[in-house]
Amino acid sequence: MKRVIVTGGTGFIGNHTVLALLKLGYEVHLTSSRHDAFPLQKSNLFFHTCDLLDEAQQKKLFSDVRPSHLLHLAWDVTHGEFWTTENNLRWVQASLSLLKYFHQFGGKRTVFAGTCAEYDWKHGYCVEGLTPLIPNTLYGTCKNSLNSIVQCYCDLNNISHAWGRVFHLYGPQEGSSRFVPSIICSMLRQKTVKCSQGTQIRDFMHVEDVSSAFVHLLNSEVQGDINIASGLAVSLKSVIKLIAKGTNYSGGIDFGAIPMPQSEPSLLVGAVKRLQNEVVFFPKYNLRQGLKSSIQYWERNQV
Amino acid sequence: MKRVIVTGGTGFIGNHTVLALLKLGYEVHLTSSRHDAFPLQKSNLFFHTCDLLDEAQQKKLFSDVRPSHLLHLAWDVTHGEFWTTENNLRWVQASLSLLKYFHQFGGKRTVFAGTCAEYDWKHGYCVEGLTPLIPNTLYGTCKNSLNSIVQCYCDLNNISHAWGRVFHLYGPQEGSSRFVPSIICSMLRQKTVKCSQGTQIRDFMHVEDVSSAFVHLLNSEVQGDINIASGLAVSLKSVIKLIAKGTNYSGGIDFGAIPMPQSEPSLLVGAVKRLQNEVVFFPKYNLRQGLKSSIQYWERNQV
Repeated sequence: MKRVIVTGGTGFIGNHTVLALLKLGYEVHLTSSRHDAFPLQKSNLFFHTCDLLDEAQQKKLFSDVRPSHLLHLAWDVTHGEFWTTENNLRWVQASLSLLKYFHQFGGKRTVFAGTCAEYDWKHGYCVEGLTPLIPNTLYGTCKNSLNSIVQCYCDLNNISHAWGRVFHLYGPQEGSSRFVPSIICSMLRQKTVKCSQGTQIRDFMHVEDVSSAFVHLLNSEVQGDINIASGLAVSLKSVIKLIAKGTNYSGGIDFGAIPMPQSEPSLLVGAVKRLQNEVVFFPKYNLRQGLKSSIQYWERNQV
Repeated sequence: MKRVIVTGGTGFIGNHTVLALLKLGYEVHLTSSRHDAFPLQKSNLFFHTCDLLDEAQQKKLFSDVRPSHLLHLAWDVTHGEFWTTENNLRWVQASLSLLKYFHQFGGKRTVFAGTCAEYDWKHGYCVEGLTPLIPNTLYGTCKNSLNSIVQCYCDLNNISHAWGRVFHLYGPQEGSSRFVPSIICSMLRQKTVKCSQGTQIRDFMHVEDVSSAFVHLLNSEVQGDINIASGLAVSLKSVIKLIAKGTNYSGGIDFGAIPMPQSEPSLLVGAVKRLQNEVVFFPKYNLRQGLKSSIQYWERNQV
């Protein structure tokens, strides 16, 4: 029996992993710090309210469940704060405990969520095992340092480990102050949109594809660092224009009204050779379809 | 008032820092997990029994002492075990908590003990900021990953931080199963000494010099990575011959009786440009004098 704990299991990425994992025959155990129950009720699906920052609660969880697999997605990703918050240190500590208990109770295969912020952004096009890992934020530093330790610990203890580096994801239920939702909501209200020049080039992936890529990766035997990315270079400007089209927006777009943040790289795209050739994963959504699903969500849930 | 917490304050390195720190005007707070009191009684010297792996005890310590300086030497360095023990993960966790409480209670300057095992040993001559940091042990990986996080956190929070990478230290009270004491004890008993070819080249530093270098570093404004090393390339064979001379050993030395461990690098020496030019530190002991102090110790304390 394949038994998986998904941390952050009710989160933006986590909640889309459930059906796919059940379909692959996993007994699925979601954890969340929130007390509200998970909406879905299925056989082989279990929900655990657990504060992962509390080591005693972690220990109880792992000793109760004794998972063969661990998909560790939980982290503090509070918009505007997560780059620098001290909680990054707490999540490193918690993640090391998770790993320890996972091993102690017989775990065999683990996938952790990493980030494109681990790469040296000066390189722009990020290739696993080639692009230098020189993060310039506390968030990126903590994730990258954690991966080094996890990889080494797993090698020593015969645990199979992969580390999925997430690039720019978007989709329904994304925080409303983030890039895609904020543009969508302004346009749905026919408000003038103010933005930067929009020449930054990014790698966008729909959250359902990100989740699906993580499930494929977990269920594979692929080890080491894997970009969870589309591999497609898209300018913010073109995203904004696609949203305008999708929302039938007729107002003005004031490109250049907001100065370009100095710390922003001009190019940030992930190589997907490993994801495509080794994990054998291909996204379901193209950008137009993906943005459409976001627009439809915000048409129903405007803030 | 400069007030310093020295973790591992009664340990091999820590216990030699005390007098020097008092002389420089620090109020000195030693921590140790052991309940036996520190032998020295001095004004401005305080002893705290504290299990640093327990976050609540850490918090109490920092809230009681409110140190301006932190010299973090404590770690699990149990001979033969420390390279791979899971305790390396625990010490990463504990060190991150230390840092958090140090900051929370107003700390300004910190020095942590790192290790030559953070470097890629293929390079042999290790230069800070140049030699790649590719540790091949869990111990080296945990120390190196910790440094990345500490450096980034300190930059964010205006804490001055240096990381002292220790090479091969030796001296009185060293664990009897380690290289220098084991050779000394065999020779003092006039037993035939069996060893490898002894062609490995290392960087030896007397423990009092290592301690003194840490005190100089703490009391300076130097930041970043600093090798705590002699900069001198010495073969194990020449160390063995110096010990033979110092113990008036007349027995045989069977070079080559023990095969060379495959994982051992042939050359491992630290560059000392930063230590000499920026910290302005120079060792007190040369190798002959240093080994003499070890021999005298084991003459009094043979196991």
